[in-house]
Amino acid sequence: MRIAFEDLTRTLATILAARGMETDRAELCARLFAETDRDGVYTHGVNRFPRFVRMIDAGGIDVHATPTPSTLVGSLERWNGNRGPGNLNAYACMGRAIEKAKESGIGCIALSNTTHWMRGGSYGWQAANAGMIGICWTNTLPNLPAWGDAVPRLGNNPLVIAVPRKSGHVVLDMAMSQFSYGALTAHRKRGELLPVDGGFDTDGRLTRDPAAIERSMRPLPIGYWKGSGLSLVLDMVAAMMAGGLATHQIPPEPDREIGVCQLFLAMNAAAFPDAVGIGDAVVTSLGGVRYPGERVLRIREENLALGILVDEVTWAKVEALIAQTRGV
Amino acid sequence: MRIAFEDLTRTLATILAARGMETDRAELCARLFAETDRDGVYTHGVNRFPRFVRMIDAGGIDVHATPTPSTLVGSLERWNGNRGPGNLNAYACMGRAIEKAKESGIGCIALSNTTHWMRGGSYGWQAANAGMIGICWTNTLPNLPAWGDAVPRLGNNPLVIAVPRKSGHVVLDMAMSQFSYGALTAHRKRGELLPVDGGFDTDGRLTRDPAAIERSMRPLPIGYWKGSGLSLVLDMVAAMMAGGLATHQIPPEPDREIGVCQLFLAMNAAAFPDAVGIGDAVVTSLGGVRYPGERVLRIREENLALGILVDEVTWAKVEALIAQTRGV
Repeated sequence: MRIAFEDLTRTLATILAARGMETDRAELCARLFAETDRDGVYTHGVNRFPRFVRMIDAGGIDVHATPTPSTLVGSLERWNGNRGPGNLNAYACMGRAIEKAKESGIGCIALSNTTHWMRGGSYGWQAANAGMIGICWTNTLPNLPAWGDAVPRLGNNPLVIAVPRKSGHVVLDMAMSQFSYGALTAHRKRGELLPVDGGFDTDGRLTRDPAAIERSMRPLPIGYWKGSGLSLVLDMVAAMMAGGLATHQIPPEPDREIGVCQLFLAMNAAAFPDAVGIGDAVVTSLGGVRYPGERVLRIREENLALGILVDEVTWAKVEALIAQTRGV
Repeated sequence: MRIAFEDLTRTLATILAARGMETDRAELCARLFAETDRDGVYTHGVNRFPRFVRMIDAGGIDVHATPTPSTLVGSLERWNGNRGPGNLNAYACMGRAIEKAKESGIGCIALSNTTHWMRGGSYGWQAANAGMIGICWTNTLPNLPAWGDAVPRLGNNPLVIAVPRKSGHVVLDMAMSQFSYGALTAHRKRGELLPVDGGFDTDGRLTRDPAAIERSMRPLPIGYWKGSGLSLVLDMVAAMMAGGLATHQIPPEPDREIGVCQLFLAMNAAAFPDAVGIGDAVVTSLGGVRYPGERVLRIREENLALGILVDEVTWAKVEALIAQTRGV
């Protein structure tokens, strides 16, 4: 089914406001959810809203909390997320990094004690829309075995790198696992093998069978030993700079994934008038090969014109939350 | 064969000084080469020295050139490498980033018009030795097809992330290709298949056969589409921030790989007294799985005690350069 973008945003905002979230914050929080689906990233938007509300109701996420500064060292700042809504916290911190970058070329905000930021790419688009190169990442609950290990002790720690362009930002938004659990499930339900090896089966053999990886809980890091190392250092840098929890300290259940650390970097590309032309020439040099983020603009246009695609199971859950809200 | 570290350094420095490099710079440049082999990274050290000298003799590398600042924007600075020796340029720029980070928490130096930095990890160790988190990357000549392309239009653009620890820094130093051409050759010579798929054969099938990939020139990016996207954005960010050449503009022959761009970031982890403990706890949580850089300390100790392992073909080339130097 398709829901108009404004209706979707208003519906989610109403549910959040009924839980005490201030009106303008509820509006922004809802918009960040709705924009994710608007841009075709259906795995990290409205489908996660019911869990988000559940975590508010359980007290894990504090709707009123905003990030507060702890240690300020020039262009580098440590902030505490106070277990506030993850997307609002992340948006505020990338906004702060952008401000700092306008002042001094680069800004770096390390955020502790926050909650799931939903779609990491949102903060890349935010930076690129401000003419900035944006780099950010988050640690996560343990869900990825290191290369050489059978137990998931690493996080999939999504990394975002966004590059501003007039004709469409390049926005890379990638987790350190080759396939998310969501992608494994989707392939299994369609009865398809993965296009490439996605993990190990319970006998420790590399496999393209999604069900075998769901059973073993041994998805593969991108590039085997390389993504394993990258996941590790992203976790270390985020936790060390933010002064918060590392992956090994985060509860392994999604409903309790509280206290994660994130790092937000903005670099003022707009300070260099030649930068945009250099970036455009790189994209042209690809000879038509698709760049990360390229499809977003077309999907966005389509979803704004026709309404946002929302699956019916998710929408039924959202409607139950509306009914509950009206009941209150 | 094994050569004492000091003898190796002195030999290389003598050859460089004979080409007009100032004594202290020749000493540092030689030491950076020798330290690479000392640390067991035999692919990026002395074995590349003959080509380095060839590029000096051909006028591609200017032994006298040092980086000069072009645009300074607070904590972000653009420098021009003036085609100087790549390892000296990179060392100077990471040094500058460290200085900036001491002043204002984070420092970012974008360097254009430089030459091959040899072992990227050197500048990670440099940052970590100063108590900093160091992040740096370089673009390269085109040597990696994008995912969905058969022509190498991307670079393998090595990325370094270094995390300081009292008991051994964690230093990730990885190119965006799953296997370097050097690794492909080594496997082929040993008659071994690659441990995992390393690229496509000339029929476009994924293969573990190193010779087939050498023939097709289609090595695989780490994580398929993911490493392809990461390589692209690393190139864009380096070239845009530095105001220099992107991969598509760099001549595709190693002897003419001149004018590359690099980005150096240092973050002052030492500003946060709790950071080191947080990092140590992450390494402990791995339960014995090896971290990037872990083997270096043992190899370093062994090579310092027994002499640096240098292969005989390389050493014959170095000896020819010494003879030539004496002849001059």
